[in-house]
Amino acid sequence: MRLAFQLSYDGNQFRGSQLQPAYRTVEGELITACQRVQLFDDPCKAGFALAGRTDRGVHARGQVGAFSTPFPERAVEALNGQLSPDLWCNGFAEVPPSFHPRFDAISRTYRYFFADWPLDIRAMDQAAAALIGTHDFSRLARVREKSPIRTVKSARVFQDRGIPVFEVTAHTYLWHMVRCMAAALLLIGTHEREPELMERLLSGKCRRNPPAAPADGLVLWDVDCGVTFTPTEPDPRSRDWIGSARREAMVRERIIGLLDRSGVDRRGKEPGDDSGRDLL
Amino acid sequence: MRLAFQLSYDGNQFRGSQLQPAYRTVEGELITACQRVQLFDDPCKAGFALAGRTDRGVHARGQVGAFSTPFPERAVEALNGQLSPDLWCNGFAEVPPSFHPRFDAISRTYRYFFADWPLDIRAMDQAAAALIGTHDFSRLARVREKSPIRTVKSARVFQDRGIPVFEVTAHTYLWHMVRCMAAALLLIGTHEREPELMERLLSGKCRRNPPAAPADGLVLWDVDCGVTFTPTEPDPRSRDWIGSARREAMVRERIIGLLDRSGVDRRGKEPGDDSGRDLL
Repeated sequence: MRLAFQLSYDGNQFRGSQLQPAYRTVEGELITACQRVQLFDDPCKAGFALAGRTDRGVHARGQVGAFSTPFPERAVEALNGQLSPDLWCNGFAEVPPSFHPRFDAISRTYRYFFADWPLDIRAMDQAAAALIGTHDFSRLARVREKSPIRTVKSARVFQDRGIPVFEVTAHTYLWHMVRCMAAALLLIGTHEREPELMERLLSGKCRRNPPAAPADGLVLWDVDCGVTFTPTEPDPRSRDWIGSARREAMVRERIIGLLDRSGVDRRGKEPGDDSGRDLL
Repeated sequence: MRLAFQLSYDGNQFRGSQLQPAYRTVEGELITACQRVQLFDDPCKAGFALAGRTDRGVHARGQVGAFSTPFPERAVEALNGQLSPDLWCNGFAEVPPSFHPRFDAISRTYRYFFADWPLDIRAMDQAAAALIGTHDFSRLARVREKSPIRTVKSARVFQDRGIPVFEVTAHTYLWHMVRCMAAALLLIGTHEREPELMERLLSGKCRRNPPAAPADGLVLWDVDCGVTFTPTEPDPRSRDWIGSARREAMVRERIIGLLDRSGVDRRGKEPGDDSGRDLL
């Protein structure tokens, strides 16, 4: 039976999603776990594949993958127990034998979380709207493929608990495309550049690409393959790991804030508190 | 003139405080910065010293140091500008020529921030009270010195914005002593061990030491050398760095929380929200 799965992972401790024999990768972890519970021996023969490639440090909330196995029940029951706590399956679905997550993906949605605020959310959202449609993204990507033309279905900037977030949906992307778009939006959000920067980048009037924004703000948010997944619970070890990683981040935030004895931390204020900079 | 200074640093990117030629250390950074602005050439001749040794990863909010220099005004004006943004002086004071921060320290206060909650704060605080006084701390330290006897002046456990914190004040400590005390308190706070564990460790009835708690929760909070410091502003680069490091931690906390699609993160709840575990 061919089985699709929906996958979350923290990108911190992975050298990206794609298999590289000498490094810890998302594909490497998954294949080893599948082999350990004998879902398949040969990942190529099992048609093992992921929908989206993610670079080193990039996270995923809704990555999609698939493989063929004679033991689908065992996959659903045992796979999460064999994975490291920083990646886990959220759901499984039976799919047709021809299903390939990469080629059958209708769209991929990314979210970029900016570790910088306050930002001019309105200007960023307006600039993001300029991305929608079919454009030459040469100046907003590292182009290796033949065609730099891509179609963005939707793009917006909003705040999530005060954190500025860029969300973009497209069928496929060029390399570093989301992180370059995020970098351009950040320049607009800090008023270092005018909102027209985006149109200039899309029309080729800017010669230089903005350097890609850091990987750790990027999340592969969702992949639409037209598949409805039956939800699975993460392993309790993953639950513990998630709670622990969150608490560690909270403690770090608190300690760093306390190191400044003067207490006049002008830029480390609560997210959403825009009082310091009159940008909105 | 002999000059004392009060110092903060984020321990993350340092191999501890003590000078090690091949590594980035707090002393190494400070000495290089002092030499660059020509406060002294030879740190030994200048009597350069810090009050407390901190291990790799341990932070400081109120470390104290001293050196002799013919140019005290230049130190106050220029030193922060020469330091990396993750360490900075909070204040300076003129001290007698014989002043030595290590030997003249009356007491050192540490705070340990636990990345684990909810915890039984009351049981931990009661156990912490047992630490006060003069005891053999062999079972709560890695003993290398001749005498394992130390005197704890005060010890308490409380919550800081919901984060459990252990605060302890003593004249001097054994190696890993604060982190071993924190580890024992954590076992009591999670109810893995009875509050009597602490007295058993102090009386030598327990044979095994609890393994030291992780370094990144520990902050050298204050050193009392009987000196009153005139406050100095951190360099703007340090201010930016503090804000940026705090925002990065906030974004990480948010992303990790969002990776769990089921949203039933039982242990990653807001600090201080004790609803899940009826420990208090």
